[in-house]
Amino acid sequence: MKGVIASRSSAPVVELSHDIEPFDVFAGAWFLRSSVPYWPEGTIFVAVIDPGVGTSRRILAVENDGRTFLGPDNGLLSLVAGPPAVSVENDSFFLPGGSTTFHGRDRFAPVAAAIANGTSLDALGTRVEEMVRLDYQPPVYDCAPAIGTIVAVDRFGNLVTDVEAALLPFARFAVKAGDVTITRVARAYGEAGAGPFLITGSTGCIEISIANGSAAALLQLGRGDRVMIIPT
Amino acid sequence: MKGVIASRSSAPVVELSHDIEPFDVFAGAWFLRSSVPYWPEGTIFVAVIDPGVGTSRRILAVENDGRTFLGPDNGLLSLVAGPPAVSVENDSFFLPGGSTTFHGRDRFAPVAAAIANGTSLDALGTRVEEMVRLDYQPPVYDCAPAIGTIVAVDRFGNLVTDVEAALLPFARFAVKAGDVTITRVARAYGEAGAGPFLITGSTGCIEISIANGSAAALLQLGRGDRVMIIPT
Amino acid sequence: MKGVIASRSSAPVVELSHDIEPFDVFAGAWFLRSSVPYWPEGTIFVAVIDPGVGTSRRILAVENDGRTFLGPDNGLLSLVAGPPAVSVENDSFFLPGGSTTFHGRDRFAPVAAAIANGTSLDALGTRVEEMVRLDYQPPVYDCAPAIGTIVAVDRFGNLVTDVEAALLPFARFAVKAGDVTITRVARAYGEAGAGPFLITGSTGCIEISIANGSAAALLQLGRGDRVMIIPT
Repeated sequence: MKGVIASRSSAPVVELSHDIEPFDVFAGAWFLRSSVPYWPEGTIFVAVIDPGVGTSRRILAVENDGRTFLGPDNGLLSLVAGPPAVSVENDSFFLPGGSTTFHGRDRFAPVAAAIANGTSLDALGTRVEEMVRLDYQPPVYDCAPAIGTIVAVDRFGNLVTDVEAALLPFARFAVKAGDVTITRVARAYGEAGAGPFLITGSTGCIEISIANGSAAALLQLGRGDRVMIIPT
Repeated sequence: MKGVIASRSSAPVVELSHDIEPFDVFAGAWFLRSSVPYWPEGTIFVAVIDPGVGTSRRILAVENDGRTFLGPDNGLLSLVAGPPAVSVENDSFFLPGGSTTFHGRDRFAPVAAAIANGTSLDALGTRVEEMVRLDYQPPVYDCAPAIGTIVAVDRFGNLVTDVEAALLPFARFAVKAGDVTITRVARAYGEAGAGPFLITGSTGCIEISIANGSAAALLQLGRGDRVMIIPT
Repeated sequence: MKGVIASRSSAPVVELSHDIEPFDVFAGAWFLRSSVPYWPEGTIFVAVIDPGVGTSRRILAVENDGRTFLGPDNGLLSLVAGPPAVSVENDSFFLPGGSTTFHGRDRFAPVAAAIANGTSLDALGTRVEEMVRLDYQPPVYDCAPAIGTIVAVDRFGNLVTDVEAALLPFARFAVKAGDVTITRVARAYGEAGAGPFLITGSTGCIEISIANGSAAALLQLGRGDRVMIIPT
């Protein structure tokens, strides 16, 4: 993909992540949600978690907040941009004789280069008013307890929920996850002492952590597990 | 290596892969074969899988199709370029006082910077007419069954053979690998249904895959295993 | 972090490593010691191994030998630069509303962009005369046997000591590590034959290696184990 872009454009290419697990569309979508706000306007995001490659699944190009997103229509873009989008079908932008198994290289990369060179999204295909959504229930804030989901486990073993602390209708809370209820809140990892604690992480969401250890391993919790946020 | 190049040249540096297993010259060679065609003319490829570092093994610089390759003379370059090559011996291009264990940093990187700055390959050393070849038997196409080899297992567990579908003298085929014979052919991963199937992968070669799973793990096959392509 | 820097500066960003284990300040410090000399003057090194993030631990900016270093005051910078340093406290350079858990993105990155744009270190905060040091005993050269430590295990399983061969007061030596004494010395991996051997690695330090294998696995040695260098 980097070679194809370098062959057709002088746009600088930055790798955001190669660490999303194969086929894990949700993890990619959440990663985008966490990263996108920190990139400047004009950035083109090319996201390829694409188990449907080669089928009739669409390729979407969509703009939001001055940034452009290119990805398969499988929910991967749905946390950072909504319809309308463009269904990328104009094959004059694709590599000739491309494969059915690596559209990242044969379609996404040359289309991204074209966008970087000034091609408008409208030139890429037809406008569509619907995008595939993730099978994902956003948190429920307006009840007590509030309800959320563990949406990521980072490389330190921190359990990241989708509950934004600033959106809760109460200021003090405990979190029930699996069999445990965690009441201790820390402002920084290094102030936490031993055992699990709650902390507002770098995305603004509540996380369950253990200083210098893995909360995921200790608590045997992971992606998809529900959490309840109990006012205290 | 990136620091040395940045110290001596303003050429942009792009990482192709750091995921080749240690000492695995063949995997590096196959990776180059798969990637090189997608890079523009003028690209300088620096390949360092170099178990012979510090011995009398040569360092080669060689051109092919407008691209330049720099690597140890151990077969690593042999699927993308052939002789004549230049044996890089002019130590005025090396870092002074360099190590015997990391020529990537002390020799390849400064030589790559010199090439990027316009140094001709002839200035680097003497011309040689032979290059070390890989211990590798290319596929045999002109018999039935045709014979090939599993040459890579990608991160999804797909088994990549070296048999280019377009070069087979027959259009319809099954593949026998280990104890199994696979007859099902899919055009896309998402159209495959359950069980192993054949697909033409992104290098044009036949692959054995399982949708949303690892064919390598299920079939207990891997690098070096032979496959027979049986006309049907 | 790359997005924040790209939003505020046109300085090129190069990734040095994402492979340091979580919380392993010493590994990061040693990695910097090995890498820094190969980068050109003017390079800004941003190092974020930061278990104390969000606590009162300081952020330091410090210059040495024409290069600038930015990192937490936990010893991470202490093998490449010494005091005086600047304690980075001027929050006009930080992202507004930043987190307490990811200062790499919210403080280090925008400060690095400011430095790249020409901001002097003195504008970032107040001068400090002390920096936290690592809990680390440098090698003892002026005795026989000399004494050192295994400070790194590379991806090949080579055991890297901190003993610089050129600083030893004797030219020929054996190394005792754990239960084994290794007498064989090789100039290159490929000249070593079977079994463990000593070699001067790419940092100038003595390493214990096994050709085409992992010395760490075979000898059951690792980071922190002491070695004795015995004149022979």
